[in-house]
Parts: sequence; structure tokens; C-alpha cells
Amino acid sequence: MQAEIISVGTEIILGQITNTNARYLADQLRQLAIEAPWQTNVDDDPARIKQALATAKERANLIFICGGLGPTEDDRTMAAVGDYLGRQLRLDEDYWQQIKAQLEARSISATVSPENIRQAYYLAGGTPLSNPTGLALGVYLKDGAHIYVVLPGPPHEFKPMVDQSLLPHLKADFGKGHQTYSALLHFVGRPESLLMQELASLGLDERLVVTSYVQPDEIQVRVTLHDVAKEEATSLLEQAIAKIARQEADYYIGRGAGVSMVSQLVALLKEKGLKITGAESLTGGLFQATLCSVAGASEVFDGGFVTYAASAKEQLLGVPVETVRQYGVVSKQTAEAMASGCQQKMGVDVGLSFTGVAGPDDLEGHPAGTVWLGLAIKGRPVESHLLRLPGQTRQFVRQQSVQEGMRLAYNALR
Amino acid sequence: MQAEIISVGTEIILGQITNTNARYLADQLRQLAIEAPWQTNVDDDPARIKQALATAKERANLIFICGGLGPTEDDRTMAAVGDYLGRQLRLDEDYWQQIKAQLEARSISATVSPENIRQAYYLAGGTPLSNPTGLALGVYLKDGAHIYVVLPGPPHEFKPMVDQSLLPHLKADFGKGHQTYSALLHFVGRPESLLMQELASLGLDERLVVTSYVQPDEIQVRVTLHDVAKEEATSLLEQAIAKIARQEADYYIGRGAGVSMVSQLVALLKEKGLKITGAESLTGGLFQATLCSVAGASEVFDGGFVTYAASAKEQLLGVPVETVRQYGVVSKQTAEAMASGCQQKMGVDVGLSFTGVAGPDDLEGHPAGTVWLGLAIKGRPVESHLLRLPGQTRQFVRQQSVQEGMRLAYNALR
Repeated sequence: MQAEIISVGTEIILGQITNTNARYLADQLRQLAIEAPWQTNVDDDPARIKQALATAKERANLIFICGGLGPTEDDRTMAAVGDYLGRQLRLDEDYWQQIKAQLEARSISATVSPENIRQAYYLAGGTPLSNPTGLALGVYLKDGAHIYVVLPGPPHEFKPMVDQSLLPHLKADFGKGHQTYSALLHFVGRPESLLMQELASLGLDERLVVTSYVQPDEIQVRVTLHDVAKEEATSLLEQAIAKIARQEADYYIGRGAGVSMVSQLVALLKEKGLKITGAESLTGGLFQATLCSVAGASEVFDGGFVTYAASAKEQLLGVPVETVRQYGVVSKQTAEAMASGCQQKMGVDVGLSFTGVAGPDDLEGHPAGTVWLGLAIKGRPVESHLLRLPGQTRQFVRQQSVQEGMRLAYNALR
Repeated sequence: MQAEIISVGTEIILGQITNTNARYLADQLRQLAIEAPWQTNVDDDPARIKQALATAKERANLIFICGGLGPTEDDRTMAAVGDYLGRQLRLDEDYWQQIKAQLEARSISATVSPENIRQAYYLAGGTPLSNPTGLALGVYLKDGAHIYVVLPGPPHEFKPMVDQSLLPHLKADFGKGHQTYSALLHFVGRPESLLMQELASLGLDERLVVTSYVQPDEIQVRVTLHDVAKEEATSLLEQAIAKIARQEADYYIGRGAGVSMVSQLVALLKEKGLKITGAESLTGGLFQATLCSVAGASEVFDGGFVTYAASAKEQLLGVPVETVRQYGVVSKQTAEAMASGCQQKMGVDVGLSFTGVAGPDDLEGHPAGTVWLGLAIKGRPVESHLLRLPGQTRQFVRQQSVQEGMRLAYNALR
């Protein structure tokens, strides 16, 4: 069984909206181990919709057609699919009565537009799919060796119809047989190519498929396994993850959908009953804003400082004027004085500082991308760490600095 | 000239990521009046990449292939395209030396991975497209009646390469003939539907196409005009923009690609020779981090405060304990005391404060999305402003608060 997802919409083709439906459906199909290697986006033109169907029919036997079921003239998907398959459109009388009642109940449009009746038609011979949050019917149609599924375009109608109306059909028809197991792992501070090389050299079981993806704030690695009995799959996955975690101990952050460097750091601080603060120069508050993106950060964070100018470092953190004068703001000494300064001023356990050159220009003779991180933990000597991120954008340098700073604190505390 | 955008990536096909590149490129093509009715997404399998190329060749003569240029084994796009076209891959020696130098300069990985050399190869006979923010080369290749363009997948590499390396080629090859004139306008603080309704009621010339895009931090409106003589087009556009700017005076931020609320605020402060600071509770540093995202922000910003806990508001800003006790932290009084406090502590002209409920939980009986902004300008009475953003995510509430705070300061100062 191979599937193809066709998304219909001139807004997609003109670049006015991002197609999020295909991703949502693909994710559902993956969980059912239905392979769907093709996605096609096309505008509302019926001739092109039919051309897309003809192409899909050659390479897939489960074909989804999403979008273009609205009440207006340019919504022509159901008719185009019917035309292509030589199927009449059939009015679902009960459903039409429901739509009318629903529209009449809405204060916003007291009258039913005659156009709305178009949304109660489906393909003869198919099963109508009801629309829990909108008006247009979808359809699930078996036609010889092929299955055609027509779904609405707006994501707030698409997702509920997929979840509530479509998935029961798919599970009934394809739920047996194949099984897929996978785990999502998160890494910070390792270039993708180096990381993947190291994972390749671990000699993992050959049935495991390891793929990587670069996110702005981390590297994600997915380990996937197909067609293996559940017990063996679990054991193979867990062994592989343990091996990876050992090999990449300094860079492996954790696993699962909700995990990130900051969520792990906040969790660790909570677990240990510690509080953290920050003193930020080039990052300008980004570290603290990232901390506060986690709900419940208030348990580990009271507040902190943005010290962009040298004067603010001296005034707010008590960094000695002499340190800045002698070593410059982009220095180990200033980073360490900032970390100690914020930790002591806030009276908390951990102080993390960021000072460096975001770019685009050099500063004090240091090229853009030169960053010093300082870490002051109560009862330990202050430490610091040099990052070099040349040739990167200002934004990237700041984001990477924040991630590296959090990794530094996380590794020092765990 | 018809174009097709092929996006290559198993992550897209498995539903792990949303394809935002196709939308970005489609939007650029529309502005050049290049029709691109087809978008295809396919996984990293070379056979399928070639199949997608064969299908595209039948229906398009300008073909973009995006993604799969990384350094790892599963990045096989350039080789697959070369194989399909019968073209050798050629090493760009100068570029490879550059990549090596860049990687060696990074402290994070002292050695260059032999894998990285793959990223310096392009298709023989084509023009390499340089990658301003990453490593992999792209290519622009004329092959008979067809043009093939290979681009990298990560959006932070894709967009700069499109803007800086690809668009000059496209403009040179397709910029004549059709003429398109357009302007990109930026708005903050107005819901999209309301804004578009108001613009529709302005009675603008019917040849103007007005489209809107919701961004996380603003609403963008593009006004476009096709096939009108340059002088008339300019006059029509300028008249329309003047009308829009008058109607939406409080929400219209400016026009052009590099313009944003923060860039306008920083420019205004520079022009007036003023300095700003911030005191942030729910936004946790996001306002100051946003300020510092603008190169040259140091002219208008020395530093400021993140005061997440009530104790930090008292300790760092001098907010009276009594104010917090009597009115709560989510109050006009606390917002105003925070704004004055940070302005006075830093000794600058403008202090902007943020206090409220990011959510998901209520705070002091206020629902998530309740936010007070405070604005203290030297020599004027302190003011404050209430935002209500119910039913929104934590992230959205924080971002909107920052944008609204900057709009408040901008409108007060200009």
C-alpha cells in the first residue's frame, strides 16, 4: 500500500499560506505504517486536479485529495474528482438538512446561501465523512484497486475530520500487519555531520533507520524500526538509545516530543531545588526569555540582568571597571565577573553569563561569533567557556550561545 | 514559463516537519509573475527524486529542487539530479577551501569531516549558488529548454540563498516582459480580518491586489499591480499606501523588506537621540532580546531588567512592596511602578514594562492573556495600557505583548 497526498489550493500555490495539512496527515499515516512517499500541491484548476489524480494513480493506491470543498465558485475539488472517476455527485439529504439548521443557528449568517448545498454532495458509491467542525462533507471511496479520500482544506476542519471520521476507516482497512516503532532524540552542541558520523560508527543493529534534522536550537535524530515484533523492537530501540546516550553523553539532551535543552535544564533545577539567574550582553535577554518560555519557570528563576553596555555591566553587576578596561568586554575575565555578579546580586545558586560579538561587525578586535560564557555555581570556582561561531548570522550566534550556555549549566549540575 | 517546486526530504514525507520553503519560494515567484502551479514533495530516495524530475519536466520548464544537500549519507539530491541530467558533479575548489577554513575556525569541531566535501560539489555546466548562512552550494543550471535550480533544505539556509544568490539570476532571466509592482506593508496590533475589512472599504483602485499574511509578530500586507506602465503603477501604489497609512495610522509600521516594529522603534530612538530600557515579568527578557536583534541597538539600549518574581520587582526596580500587596503584580499600578523604576535605575529617557499572565494558568484571579504594559518617558506622566489575549498560547501572549509594548512606545514618541 502506497499513498499520495494531493493538496488543492491556489493560496498554497501562490505562497499565501503554508500547507500544514499534508504534514498532519503524513504523521498519522506514518503511525499506521502506511508509506506515503509523494505529496503534490496544485491550484484550484479542475484540469490540473485531474492531471494530479492521473499521476497519483500510477504510483499510489491510496490517494488523499485535500482542499477546495468550500461553498464558492473556486471550490471545485469534489466535482473534479467525480469527473475524473466518472462518478456522479450525490446529495446527502439528511446532512443538507443538518447544515441548514446549523447555519440558521449561527447569529453571523441568518440565511442559508444556496451555494452551501454544494457542501452536502459526495461521490456516489463512497462513504460520506462527516465534518465535526465545519460544513463540507468528505468522502472515502473504494474504486477498484484504489481508494480515494476527499477532505476539506481549512486546518480547523481538516484535523477533526481526519481524527474522528477518517482514521476509523484507515484503521479498519490497514490497521493490521505492519508496525513501526520510533524514538526522537535531542542533541545540542554537536555539528550534524560529526554527530551522524559518530552514530554511524556505533555499529547499531542494521534494521534501525537513523535520520537527523537540524532545528534552529538543536539537532534531532529519529531512530525508526519497521516490521519487528513489539518486544524485540522495544529491546533493540532501548539498547540503541542507551549506546547513543553513552557515546554522546555531553551532547545528548533527552528523548520524546516535548523535550528541549531548556525544558531539561528547568526540570533539573527543579529536581535539585536550585535557582538560576542570567547576565546577558550579546544575547540581550534571550537566555532568560527562553527560560521563561517553560511554564513553571518561576520555581527556578526570579529574575536577572541585561547588561548590553559596559557601563551596565559595572553598574548592575558590579563588574570592576578595571576588568573591562584591562581585558575588554569580550573576555574570560568579564564573563566570569558577570556570572559571579548576577549570582550574588540575585542571591541564587547559579549565575550564567553571555558576552561576545553577535556581529555583523568586529568588537575589540574579535571577529563576529566570538562568545564567552561564564558559569558561577555557589560553592564552586567560577568557570568560563569560549565559543567560536564565525560566518554565522547575528541571530544564529545569539541562539547558539543561549543553547551552549544552557548545556554548560546542565552538564555542570547533573 | 511554468515552474515547479520539488521539495526533497524524508522528514517532510514522514510528517516530522512542515514544508515552509515551498511557500517562501512560491511567494517570490509570484512577485516575478512566474506561474508555479505545481509543488511536489518527495522523500530522499534517489529513484523517486528522479521520477519527480521526469514528471516535472513534462509540465514545467523552470524546476526547483530543494533539500537534501547536507553532508550525510541520506543527502543525495545533488547526485540524483546530476544522474538524471547526465551531468558530472564538479568540486568548487575555492569554495571547499572556504568551507574548511570556516569549520576549522569553529572551536566546536576542530577537525573537518571528510563528509563536508560533498557540500562543495555542484552540477557541471551550472552556476554555483553560494550559501550565505550555511555550507552546501546550490546550483542554477540551464539545460536545453529547461532551467534546474538546486537549493538547500534548512529554512535558515534556504531563504538567504534564495534572496541573495537565486533572485538576481531569476530577475536577470525573467525580470523583463511582465512587470509587477508591489509594496510590502507592516502592521502591528490589528487582527487580520478586521484590518482586511477596513482596507477593503477604502475603495482602492480595482487593479490593486491586496493580500495579507499573518506572521508571529505582525500582519504583512502586500499590494501588487501587474502590467501597468511604470509611472501609472508608481502613482497608483503610492496613492493607495498613503490612504492605507492614514486609515491605519495607529497600526501601520512602515513598508519594505527589512522593516519591522523593532527596526522602526530603534530607528526612531536613534533619530531622537533617546535611550530605552525594559523591566520584564511575563516576557522574561523577550522585549530586550528583540531590541538587541537589531544591529546597532547599543546606540539606544544600555541594559535592563528581568523581574519575574515579585521579590525581583521590589529588589531590582524599587517597586513598593505595598503596591504589589495592594494591587497585585498584574495591575496598572505595578506596571507603572516597574516602568518608572527601570527608567530611573538606568537613568535613561524611556522605560517600558511588561507584567501579566502568560498562562496556561490564571494568576491572581486574572485569566491567561491579561497583560499590563507600562511606559515611562522622562518629563511626562507615566502611562499604562491593558492587553487582553484570551485563549492564546503562552508563546503568542509573550510575543504579542512585546510587539504591543513597542507599538505603544513608538506611537508615544513619534
